[in-house]
Amino acid sequence: MEPSNFNSNPHRRLNILTGEWILVSPHRNKRPWQGKTEKSAETNLPSYDPSCYLCPTNKRMGGGINPAYKKPFSFVNDFSALLQDVGNESYENGLLYAESESGICKVVCFSPDHSLTLPLMTVEAITDVISLWQQEYAELGSKEGINHVQIFENKGAIMGCSNPHPHGQIWAQHKIPLEVEKKIRQLKNYWDKHNKSILQDYLGQELELDKRIVLENEYFVALVPYWAVWPYETMILPKRKIAHIGLLTEPEKKAYAEILKDLTIKYDNIFKTSFPYSAGIHQAPTDGKEHPEWHFHMSFYPPLLRSATVKKFMVGYEMFANPQRDITAEQAAETLKALPKKHYTLF
Amino acid sequence: MEPSNFNSNPHRRLNILTGEWILVSPHRNKRPWQGKTEKSAETNLPSYDPSCYLCPTNKRMGGGINPAYKKPFSFVNDFSALLQDVGNESYENGLLYAESESGICKVVCFSPDHSLTLPLMTVEAITDVISLWQQEYAELGSKEGINHVQIFENKGAIMGCSNPHPHGQIWAQHKIPLEVEKKIRQLKNYWDKHNKSILQDYLGQELELDKRIVLENEYFVALVPYWAVWPYETMILPKRKIAHIGLLTEPEKKAYAEILKDLTIKYDNIFKTSFPYSAGIHQAPTDGKEHPEWHFHMSFYPPLLRSATVKKFMVGYEMFANPQRDITAEQAAETLKALPKKHYTLF
Ligand SMILES: O=P(O)(O)O[C@H]1O[C@H](CO)[C@@H](O)[C@H](O)[C@H]1O
Ligand SMILES: O=P(O)(O)O[C@H]1O[C@H](CO)[C@@H](O)[C@H](O)[C@H]1O
Repeated sequence: MEPSNFNSNPHRRLNILTGEWILVSPHRNKRPWQGKTEKSAETNLPSYDPSCYLCPTNKRMGGGINPAYKKPFSFVNDFSALLQDVGNESYENGLLYAESESGICKVVCFSPDHSLTLPLMTVEAITDVISLWQQEYAELGSKEGINHVQIFENKGAIMGCSNPHPHGQIWAQHKIPLEVEKKIRQLKNYWDKHNKSILQDYLGQELELDKRIVLENEYFVALVPYWAVWPYETMILPKRKIAHIGLLTEPEKKAYAEILKDLTIKYDNIFKTSFPYSAGIHQAPTDGKEHPEWHFHMSFYPPLLRSATVKKFMVGYEMFANPQRDITAEQAAETLKALPKKHYTLF
Repeated sequence: MEPSNFNSNPHRRLNILTGEWILVSPHRNKRPWQGKTEKSAETNLPSYDPSCYLCPTNKRMGGGINPAYKKPFSFVNDFSALLQDVGNESYENGLLYAESESGICKVVCFSPDHSLTLPLMTVEAITDVISLWQQEYAELGSKEGINHVQIFENKGAIMGCSNPHPHGQIWAQHKIPLEVEKKIRQLKNYWDKHNKSILQDYLGQELELDKRIVLENEYFVALVPYWAVWPYETMILPKRKIAHIGLLTEPEKKAYAEILKDLTIKYDNIFKTSFPYSAGIHQAPTDGKEHPEWHFHMSFYPPLLRSATVKKFMVGYEMFANPQRDITAEQAAETLKALPKKHYTLF
């Protein structure tokens, strides 16, 4: 039995996917907040915005013109942080170490409709987004020198998103990035020891305990991980061990779209606002090696804590010492679970 | 010689203190910003604010009354994230791992004057702050079960600071936190191998290269580390290997106060605004062991990138993959170095 005072007393929990501990301070949520409040997200956007550089037929910042796209549409980021053909230099001088890094950054418009977000799109339209992610993962991943493909979405101005048009990004690169490296190590350790996916065993345990499950359908589960850091952090994972999204069957793809829709609806319903987050898919590297240890999953890191305008700041102690959260994973899961699966704007 | 295209092309640099790589995309700073802008910090605050829970003689949120303090003043946080006497339980159930964590959280008011900030305080007044930090480090660190003392400051509303009264915090705890653990490992590896402080060797190299030095006085240096992540990230470090602030001589303490003042003045001068940041001191753990490898240093993680209202967002790619920055450490150091040592409000 879990010590019952963990519901109210400070404790640490282990993130089995990174090997890192996080600090939980459940009692702290009571503190009054006199600090910064955020602007609530704008809603009631037009379906087409002539000044939006992501809308169909409009001119982009880099000068190109978007086609009159009807389905999800991707293009190379006009301000890519990673570039191809930057050479392959490495530099070592005493205690200074650097090396070239090459890659490709793309933007993925989820819909031609400027006013939509994932929770307001149809399951069919979300399935099309997943299809484009699959195609990009396969195409980018098969390029020479691209060993990792990071698919993600920054949603909302407070998550650094500079345009409300529904879109995500993909940064594909040569080196395996830090967060993924940690997960590979942990997944691989478990695989080598048990010949099983750590996430499959974890999922089995969570389904049995049923304290942190938010949503479940035939092929997918959405849950608040035991070691969640962000207030309403969740993880979507397939029930069977699937190394990357390219391996989804058609019914699985549809189930993935469904759970994505249901989860993001619940998110919007928490504070009756277009809920900001960064979401990302972690999956097998595209380094040409076998990755039997991989079990792909999509995580959501949403900053809002108490209302549509009060977020959790990961600053000070969190930057210098340790990630820390103020509500337990169980409390967050309970809130999310209880929320309707119908979007608040449609009631 | 460093490959010259690292000034303009994406590359990675190694943080020798954590062992982690960061992605640098110097060319990316050219991208236009259409996203969120922040409110600039309020200035012209009164010296005493009757509604401030940190001003002398006022009532605190937890009900206590502040004394009529004239010098830096500390007290136990009314909403401490860490508590004493929470027991010592540990929980392991399949893939769930948790354990109690105990500690003490304190607030340190830097000055009775509500309107001040470090750059606007006198060197003597800053020296008093350092004296209080020393006292807290010694007192908290000598308590049974406190193995680490994290001193930090969150400055500015965008850094989650809920009160402009000049203050910092201290979270002291049983376990060594994650970020510190990484540094201990790296410092110790180097010490064991070379019988020298990695930071002393690094500092020697930086002084010789003179490309990232921002300030130098008799006993201290402020520089932009080669592996900086935040746009104007800096590190203050003593020239001699000092394991913790308790070991500073009086002249060193004064030199530390001076460089703290000079650096924070330069920060305010970048965008002519009260410059937000989280700052933290990393020093030897208080676990009773010898720590010959430790060389204390204070780091500043400031989010502003382009102006008083446009910050760098560490989201999406940074959360799921890898820390990333848009200007080089050398560019940031050059900007900081060129700025006057007189506060912009005093011209
Ligand atoms: O303790 P405060 O000032 O209320 O809170 C601030 O600093 C803490 C420690 O860095 C963070 O955990 C909080 O998110 C932040 O808002
Ligand atoms: O690429 P964008 O949307 O301009 O920029 C946004 O996402 C990037 C990737 O997560 C971040 O590096 C930026 O800080 C953020 O503002």
